[in-house]
Amino acid sequence: MRYSLFGESHGPAIGIVLQDVPPGLEIDMDFIAAEMARRAPGGSPLATARKEKDAVRIVSGVFEGRACGTPLCGIIENTDTRSRDYTATRWLARPGHADYAAHLRYQGFEDYRGGGHFSGRLTAPLVFAGAVAKLALRQKGIEIFAHIRQAAGIDDRALDFAQPDREALRAAGKKSFPVLDDARGESMRQAILAARADGDSVGGLLEGVILGMPAGTGGPDFDENLETCLARHLFAVPAVKGLAFGLGFGFAALRGSEANDAFVPGNPPATRTNHNGGINGGIANGMPIVFTVAIKPTPSISREQDTVDMRSGEAAKLIIAGRHDPCILPRAVPVVEAAAALAVSGVPGVLA
Amino acid sequence: MRYSLFGESHGPAIGIVLQDVPPGLEIDMDFIAAEMARRAPGGSPLATARKEKDAVRIVSGVFEGRACGTPLCGIIENTDTRSRDYTATRWLARPGHADYAAHLRYQGFEDYRGGGHFSGRLTAPLVFAGAVAKLALRQKGIEIFAHIRQAAGIDDRALDFAQPDREALRAAGKKSFPVLDDARGESMRQAILAARADGDSVGGLLEGVILGMPAGTGGPDFDENLETCLARHLFAVPAVKGLAFGLGFGFAALRGSEANDAFVPGNPPATRTNHNGGINGGIANGMPIVFTVAIKPTPSISREQDTVDMRSGEAAKLIIAGRHDPCILPRAVPVVEAAAALAVSGVPGVLA
Amino acid sequence: MRYSLFGESHGPAIGIVLQDVPPGLEIDMDFIAAEMARRAPGGSPLATARKEKDAVRIVSGVFEGRACGTPLCGIIENTDTRSRDYTATRWLARPGHADYAAHLRYQGFEDYRGGGHFSGRLTAPLVFAGAVAKLALRQKGIEIFAHIRQAAGIDDRALDFAQPDREALRAAGKKSFPVLDDARGESMRQAILAARADGDSVGGLLEGVILGMPAGTGGPDFDENLETCLARHLFAVPAVKGLAFGLGFGFAALRGSEANDAFVPGNPPATRTNHNGGINGGIANGMPIVFTVAIKPTPSISREQDTVDMRSGEAAKLIIAGRHDPCILPRAVPVVEAAAALAVSGVPGVLA
Amino acid sequence: MRYSLFGESHGPAIGIVLQDVPPGLEIDMDFIAAEMARRAPGGSPLATARKEKDAVRIVSGVFEGRACGTPLCGIIENTDTRSRDYTATRWLARPGHADYAAHLRYQGFEDYRGGGHFSGRLTAPLVFAGAVAKLALRQKGIEIFAHIRQAAGIDDRALDFAQPDREALRAAGKKSFPVLDDARGESMRQAILAARADGDSVGGLLEGVILGMPAGTGGPDFDENLETCLARHLFAVPAVKGLAFGLGFGFAALRGSEANDAFVPGNPPATRTNHNGGINGGIANGMPIVFTVAIKPTPSISREQDTVDMRSGEAAKLIIAGRHDPCILPRAVPVVEAAAALAVSGVPGVLA
Repeated sequence: MRYSLFGESHGPAIGIVLQDVPPGLEIDMDFIAAEMARRAPGGSPLATARKEKDAVRIVSGVFEGRACGTPLCGIIENTDTRSRDYTATRWLARPGHADYAAHLRYQGFEDYRGGGHFSGRLTAPLVFAGAVAKLALRQKGIEIFAHIRQAAGIDDRALDFAQPDREALRAAGKKSFPVLDDARGESMRQAILAARADGDSVGGLLEGVILGMPAGTGGPDFDENLETCLARHLFAVPAVKGLAFGLGFGFAALRGSEANDAFVPGNPPATRTNHNGGINGGIANGMPIVFTVAIKPTPSISREQDTVDMRSGEAAKLIIAGRHDPCILPRAVPVVEAAAALAVSGVPGVLA
Repeated sequence: MRYSLFGESHGPAIGIVLQDVPPGLEIDMDFIAAEMARRAPGGSPLATARKEKDAVRIVSGVFEGRACGTPLCGIIENTDTRSRDYTATRWLARPGHADYAAHLRYQGFEDYRGGGHFSGRLTAPLVFAGAVAKLALRQKGIEIFAHIRQAAGIDDRALDFAQPDREALRAAGKKSFPVLDDARGESMRQAILAARADGDSVGGLLEGVILGMPAGTGGPDFDENLETCLARHLFAVPAVKGLAFGLGFGFAALRGSEANDAFVPGNPPATRTNHNGGINGGIANGMPIVFTVAIKPTPSISREQDTVDMRSGEAAKLIIAGRHDPCILPRAVPVVEAAAALAVSGVPGVLA
Repeated sequence: MRYSLFGESHGPAIGIVLQDVPPGLEIDMDFIAAEMARRAPGGSPLATARKEKDAVRIVSGVFEGRACGTPLCGIIENTDTRSRDYTATRWLARPGHADYAAHLRYQGFEDYRGGGHFSGRLTAPLVFAGAVAKLALRQKGIEIFAHIRQAAGIDDRALDFAQPDREALRAAGKKSFPVLDDARGESMRQAILAARADGDSVGGLLEGVILGMPAGTGGPDFDENLETCLARHLFAVPAVKGLAFGLGFGFAALRGSEANDAFVPGNPPATRTNHNGGINGGIANGMPIVFTVAIKPTPSISREQDTVDMRSGEAAKLIIAGRHDPCILPRAVPVVEAAAALAVSGVPGVLA
Repeated sequence: MRYSLFGESHGPAIGIVLQDVPPGLEIDMDFIAAEMARRAPGGSPLATARKEKDAVRIVSGVFEGRACGTPLCGIIENTDTRSRDYTATRWLARPGHADYAAHLRYQGFEDYRGGGHFSGRLTAPLVFAGAVAKLALRQKGIEIFAHIRQAAGIDDRALDFAQPDREALRAAGKKSFPVLDDARGESMRQAILAARADGDSVGGLLEGVILGMPAGTGGPDFDENLETCLARHLFAVPAVKGLAFGLGFGFAALRGSEANDAFVPGNPPATRTNHNGGINGGIANGMPIVFTVAIKPTPSISREQDTVDMRSGEAAKLIIAGRHDPCILPRAVPVVEAAAALAVSGVPGVLA
């Protein structure tokens, strides 16, 4: 599925146009609302206090409860855009944010309020579209999961790449703090609250798993390569700064004899290990697709930071006001799942 | 620049068609030959013994020594394709290779000889095209480097992301074993030779640096986002299983106050650190672009491995004959540079 | 500029997402409203009686009256969707319409009301986007015109392709019946009213002219070829069944000596005639771009027609109720201009 | 199928890279050679005297006689590029050709010899790729025909759009002068020979027919719309200056009651007439696809023509030497078929 994302954080509305939705697909609004709720702010001390219902209004592409096959547009009105005065910080580039780069890119005409088009808020329509993609993939027996693999340096329980625990993954997805091991999750939470108390934020890793991907889909070409397709969608998610398949960076210290996935007999055959994360040569080999994304710490922290005035280049001090997440990992989980769902649904032979 | 790569390892020829080459660009054949030589096999005990001149024949797009603006096609004949008998191993999937996945993808019609289209040999035309892209980028003051950041668990000297040493990077690129610190490089080499003596192979990390990227190029959209564009090209390179920008996976254990790149005054302003690897929101912020790719160990090892017969799914033992690299890192350096050059040259506003 | 069009005639809303709008472009709402008014129904006995304000709500991509460079989404609510009962005609394919083809394409899940996504109503957001494109093109000195070249077999005054009368074209665009020669226009109107009185409709030709197109833009490749770019956008307009450049089909009866455009000296040189419509090899040659589109008669006529029930394939009689244009030519003029503006604005080197 | 065409008329070679060829497709070299022969020069007083075997060398994508699924590259060496001296005419723009436009586009770096990349010779690899596409389409029951509809103002027999005579179309395709009615063909030939005797050339119309196109393929979106897909490929063919579907420009003078295609009962239903050429809303309706292209007269004529020196803009006289077709229509027939085959094979749901 192809999509066009639009909107700015403090503009009238944000939304998405989604193409190639299979005609007849039942648009399960409860499922979509549940997915949106997983990403929505306001439910936790770990997240921003901004409260928006994020109610998606579908204005096209759905007829009598089903996709009619034409482009599906979902719109979310921006209702809680406090009419805060940005005058004081208009020209101060927030470190770690896209403010300065966007200022150059758009020659000073960018909508700077709340990060504009670069706001994490734009992940709401992405989750909406991902939910639609998940509904379509589910019909094909494909399921997508993600969980917090690491936060503040604390690891979740390791997953068996060759035989990931589907039930544990499903359960994790329903938690407000989506980890496999709740005790480790609690340690992570404490570390996040400690960072918050320090006016700081933390980063981490998310692990994604795709089950049921048909073996033989994908290919070497850019537009069908599973790794490039997932990369294209995942690196478009704000705060993602790294992506690895299977062992990923862990391959660097291994030898071939350790890294290779030996085949085990069967019909179809499988591999004993799944270090390659289910993909060889850009093609699904029938094993679970496993990937990891690195999420940088929320750049918006309440501590004073060194910056510059973008007009003059002169030094300035910045204190970021407003509502921010000390850790976006829990809310990033459904976003990463959504990006993966959209990526996979566009690979030839998966949906059509 | 867009490209179409074609060819199989043991077919008549391999090559590439490269579009959007700036008319008038001088096609410096000495530079191209030097780039090809960096990737060519045959020069080292670390690499395969296959010897091919990899002479590129340019059949279109160049007139009187300059690009004429129309598609540029370079062809490399396959001259050293030993007429080896593949009968014994035709149906045995090599662990870690694309054989089995390709067998599914192409329904048994794949050219399996030497890995076919998935052979590392296909990186030769990629390096050719990358060399053309580098020539075009050089005219815009953009230079691309890569070096072995880690091999067999041994690290090269760390680079200052905010002020990478251009001369050291240039020098590394000319070495047969491209590292910044030769003593560490020698340790890596020893580790690779030890693996080779064991009939094994090693993986590692490559670090890439792009200097001179115009601030403000890129954008949030898939087709202009610097991170998605680089990811799209780099994950299409065989053996690449991970990609990170700036600190990448290192962000996971940091706090925002450590991770953020504070601005320092100037005209234009810069950042004190460059943890984001020169990219925010998919846009170049004027700092050096820094990325790391994870390369898995060469799957072709001489040890006996467990596999299956792809027809029956029954167990089999495989010993891979032929010529293979115990470590592809040195040869992967120019390939990664080429992929990065092609990615960057296609970003709007860079070349045109 | 790339765009995604969405919406169904009787769904909640229709709209468009427009990408690559130059940052800083002043969004002249008066101009946009005037363009929308040219297409809007309700003003003439020649057009449908459906009255909708077609007020576009811009929800993204504009900040403080200027394009901010991110995707611009304009939405038009469907307010006049009479809750008519479609039960009687739900399964009757309207001859000349997309009903039956869409029924097959969407497997019966299409939103059939009022033609759904295939309704001429979808040209409203197209005209909106075209107006934005025109604003951007105007800054580059590029102007786009269209007029009714022929209606009901009656010709407008012929245009000098080599030196089209800019003032006459401008004046035509402002007329409710956009022709160069009002006397001929009046004959056309009478013929249209006669068809209307017969419960019938008429077809015709529109002629488009692009002035100020920079010589040397375009190219042989699909994505830059001026003819393929214009064709791609113009054939996506409902009711367009033919497209020709310059003399077009008139070339068929000529000899090369009559057809060739001899060059006349100058700096830059020009051609004496402009039979090629300003394009050679897909590239603008500096002469005015001239094209003609064939518009089929409105398929919705009030006469009884032979059709089938799409479920059973059995014969049926159909009388189309509702509000329809006996001739869409006047309203198609701004639509064709919009499609041309969007096509041209996406050609490399025109806007950026 | 996507393709990249490369080469210049007098460069080392020309060729094409074709993607998405179905794995396992038998590459019938006899059929391909026969298709190439239909386009090849040298066989007739109507065509250029240039004699080239146009032998295609397939260098990738085929294994053991079948497509292996990876990009298929076919190369044709330029063996008959007479080392003629272009000095005298290097800077003289040939009227009706792309010389001047290309000179601007490529800033003077174009390979001007024999028209370079804009030479009709580039249609040879297009016919090759089209032959491969035809082989794939044939397996799906889709057949593509074209014939000369009009030459020098003389019409071929009209085709019944609703029930085109498949055998007559097949027979026409095998003729050296591909028309339905040989008596009319003979009149056309005489008119062409008369033009040739006058040092002149003629234009004409080609009619294309696609039989077996699955109903319901296509769609309103650019990338699936049958009309935009065909237009995109057909307008990329040199000398094509117009394209129409079904009645095309003939719609202009009709009323809706005459133009509409009434449905006739059946399973599936059909239409009595086929004025829409088998396409509604960009979607195949199950009737034959019928289109017409306008081909301008060969611009290369032997008469003296007025032109300019591209450097100075000063007046000059040009006499074009070399080998040229007084009428390209017979050779354009397989080219138009090839472009249509490539267009159709890329529509989602047709091949995969």
